[in-house]
This record gives sequence, C-alpha cells and structure tokens, in this order.
Amino acid sequence: GVIQESIKSGKIGSVIGATNGVLGVLKEDLFDISAEKPETIEALKQTPAAAIGSCRYKLKSLEESKADFERVLDVFGAHNIRYFFYAGGNDSMDTADKVNKLATDAGYELVCMGIPKTVDNDLACTDHCPGYPSVAKYVATCAAEAGRDTEALYTTDTCTILEVMGRNAGWIAAATGLAHRCPEDAPHLVYLPEAAFSFDKLVSDVKEVLKELGRVFIVAGEGLKDENGEYVTADKGAFGKDSFGHVQLGGVAEMLKAMIEKEVGIKARFNKLGTNQ
Amino acid sequence: GVIQESIKSGKIGSVIGATNGVLGVLKEDLFDISAEKPETIEALKQTPAAAIGSCRYKLKSLEESKADFERVLDVFGAHNIRYFFYAGGNDSMDTADKVNKLATDAGYELVCMGIPKTVDNDLACTDHCPGYPSVAKYVATCAAEAGRDTEALYTTDTCTILEVMGRNAGWIAAATGLAHRCPEDAPHLVYLPEAAFSFDKLVSDVKEVLKELGRVFIVAGEGLKDENGEYVTADKGAFGKDSFGHVQLGGVAEMLKAMIEKEVGIKARFNKLGTNQ
Repeated sequence: GVIQESIKSGKIGSVIGATNGVLGVLKEDLFDISAEKPETIEALKQTPAAAIGSCRYKLKSLEESKADFERVLDVFGAHNIRYFFYAGGNDSMDTADKVNKLATDAGYELVCMGIPKTVDNDLACTDHCPGYPSVAKYVATCAAEAGRDTEALYTTDTCTILEVMGRNAGWIAAATGLAHRCPEDAPHLVYLPEAAFSFDKLVSDVKEVLKELGRVFIVAGEGLKDENGEYVTADKGAFGKDSFGHVQLGGVAEMLKAMIEKEVGIKARFNKLGTNQ
Repeated sequence: GVIQESIKSGKIGSVIGATNGVLGVLKEDLFDISAEKPETIEALKQTPAAAIGSCRYKLKSLEESKADFERVLDVFGAHNIRYFFYAGGNDSMDTADKVNKLATDAGYELVCMGIPKTVDNDLACTDHCPGYPSVAKYVATCAAEAGRDTEALYTTDTCTILEVMGRNAGWIAAATGLAHRCPEDAPHLVYLPEAAFSFDKLVSDVKEVLKELGRVFIVAGEGLKDENGEYVTADKGAFGKDSFGHVQLGGVAEMLKAMIEKEVGIKARFNKLGTNQ
C-alpha cells in the first residue's frame, strides 16, 4: 500500500496520519503512522472501515472555506508535509484537488494525490475502485443465500427485498446479478438509482414474476428516484410529522414492502444490509 | 447426514423427500432423494436454507387437525414409509411428536425422529442446534465489521443499531457479544427478547455509552417486549392506519432509531440482517 511504499521510498521522513480525515488536519490531530509495527500496517489491508477514521466534513469552494484551507496549509507547513494522500470518494477527491490548487497559488511545494476508495464504484475516470469488488462479492452472496431462503419458504413468504447501498450509483445493486445463473435464481428484479422508478411498474413486474415462479426476490439501491429525480422516500427519522411510534417511512425497502403488501396482497419482508456491506 | 446414513443402512429401500415439509406429505408431493447424485446430497451440508423446501404450516391438536393427520398416515401407508425424519424448530418437533402418537394409536409401525435445526437455538433439551454456530459466527462478524465503520465515522454518525433474529430467544443477539474483546469494541449495548425492554432505560444506556466512548453500537433481538410481555413494535406493513407512504413503524431497529434520534438528538442508522443470517 501507499503507506508501506512511502516508508520504503527514502524520500519521506515519516508518514503522518490525520485522525478522521481532513478534520484531523484542521485540528492538528496527527500521529506518526511510520512508528506503527509493520504487521499493524500490513493488517490494514484486511481491516474493515478506515483505521485512522473518516469524516463527513466537506470543504466548500476555496472562497467559502478560505480559513479551513489556509489552516490546512499552515498545519502542513508546521510539520513540513510535502505529500498529501487523501483516500475516499468524490468529496475527498474534490478536497485533494482544492488543496492542490491552493498550494500552487500559495507557492507551497506539495504533491497532492487522491486515492480512490469507495464501495459505490462511482469515481470518474476509474474502472473500479478498491472496495467495490469485495462489496460486489458480498452482496451477490447475500442475494444467492437469502434467495435460497425465499425459495425454501415460497409457499407462504413469497417476497424478499434486499436493500443495498448506492444513493446515485447502481453498481452495488447491479452486482447482485452475479448471483443469477438461471431464471429461477435470485434476484428476479433489480432496481437501480440511475433509472426512473415507478411504483406501477414495480407492481406489474412483481405480478409477472409471481405468475412465472411463485416467488420474487427484489434488489433495490437505497437511492431510487422517480421520473422527476426526487427520492421515492426520505429518511425522516424522528423528525416526521407523527407523534412517537408513528414516524414516516424510512428507507426504500420499507416503502417497497408496504407497496407490495398493499397492491399485490402478498407478505413481503426486507433485509437491509446497511454498513455491513 | 441422516440421508446418507439411511441410504447406507440397508434397512431402508429408498429415502423419500417431501417438498415443503409436511405440506408435501399432505399433497403427496414426494420424490426419491436416494436417486440424487451422491455429490448433490453431500453439497446439502453447505447449502443455505432447506433444499427440499420448508413451510409455515402448523398442524393443530390431533382432534382439530384430524383429517390432516389421517392423510399423513394414509400417504405413509401408500408409500410404505416406516421412518419419518422431520427437521426444524419447535413446531416441527411438535408435528413429529403428534404423528408418532397417531401412528402408535393406529397401530401403524413408524419410527418418528425430530431433527433439531433452527438458527434460534431455542429447542428444549438441546445444548446447541445445527444452524446456531454458523449464525453466531456470522452475526459476531457483522457486529465487529459494522462496529469498525461506526468507529471510523464516529465524529458524525454516532449510533448504529444491528437488528438480528430471535422473536423469543436471545441466543443470536447474545452471540454478537463474541465481537466484544475490549470496552471500545462493538457491541456496546445488547437487548435480548427475554428481558423486559424499557425505552427510558435505552435512552439512559445510550447517553452513558456516548459520554464514555462518543459513539454507540447497539444490537437488538427482533422480538423485544415491554414489561407486560407485549412486543414493543409490530410489523403492520400496509395494513396500518395511514394512507400510502405513511405506514406504521415496522421493526425494532426502526423504532429504536426513531427513539434515539428524538430523545438523544444524534443521528442513528440501522442494519437489519433479516434472512441473510
């Protein structure tokens, strides 16, 4: 990995980690990764999630987040940091790009490198991102296994919905198709966020599969949108209109389940893999 | 397995499978398992779900389901079936027991054997059921992995709820404790269906863990009940009071998520493993 190669390169004194991404830089919450044992660094390749932490902190434009960007360069200067590797998805790549521009403008010598790392596989100019092949294998296995369960029980519990990640990109949902080797195999229906979703179409799709197979296994990306590009559901949590215990519908799978039970008249259930993906 | 040993025993002419359990017997939907290839039978040990199908058909008392029980004996007689192996949980063991009683009363020579097989591990007189060790390993791994994700993101997304199977038995929820090796590890809170659940206690538990660790990972068995033994939530699906899109809360995890967001004021999310367990 990049940490091991950096240590080996001889051009870099020490590899500094920032706890929780750019937040760690802003707070000067840094530590010496190169002081960790080699086996600890090697183990990172197999460790789920980001070992040094992640964040949901998005830097805005250089003008709007001026103080933040200047703080980043100040911290880099104080520690004589000359290479900036930033791992993540689109927002992280954007941060790396902006830091690069600012450093150039300020005449601060810095090499900025974005490291693609997102399960969603939605980074421009990449064929596949690290993280995607493992999640693809995982969700395909989930579809195959839960599909068998639906098949075993199909005299009564005839519909299973598997909700997978992907607010805007359908790569993960599409990967469940790898579980499908013959018409009987799950999944029978896959809905991607890229295609406009219609409840009427869902109901007719489900009826058709039921007619043919007597059961239906559906995969839905979490970010399905209607023909106007609006999410078909939004997680309103405790902030919905109703009093305690009567919140609004949460995710896509609940919505589809309710719709199918109402309009098709069969029992449906859902598995929501969430961060287990 | 029992199929291979039965074939080998020499006492049994052929091993007959009934599609979808006792439903297959009632419908005389039978097939010759011993005619399958040995490698197909061997593969069953690693196949998720019941290869010959399962059912949710519960025979009532011998008096109430008299016609069904007599039909079972008639079908057995027609095929000269003298050994009855029935795999499953409590309801299946009950069916095997009733069929045994009826055969004895009717003077029909039959050996009935219940084969314990339930992920819930809640069969009386067994230490552990086949199915439980694998689900225990699976959910403990899920807790460990999703726990790392919560840890990586704990500056913003501080609460993850993992909903696992177990309407009445907490063995599966308890198994996630295997992921916990030090106080920082997930899960931090585990709620079992056996113990009366209180929302007030949940809120104070969550606040306490947050104060200590800054994040909280919760495991909940799907069948949590209050001090009166009532389920704290019920899956009302499309049959709730509200119009389309506004159904009642479904499962325990949604309920806990809503409660924590409202009462503790932090973002929560949930993973519901469902039939992927």
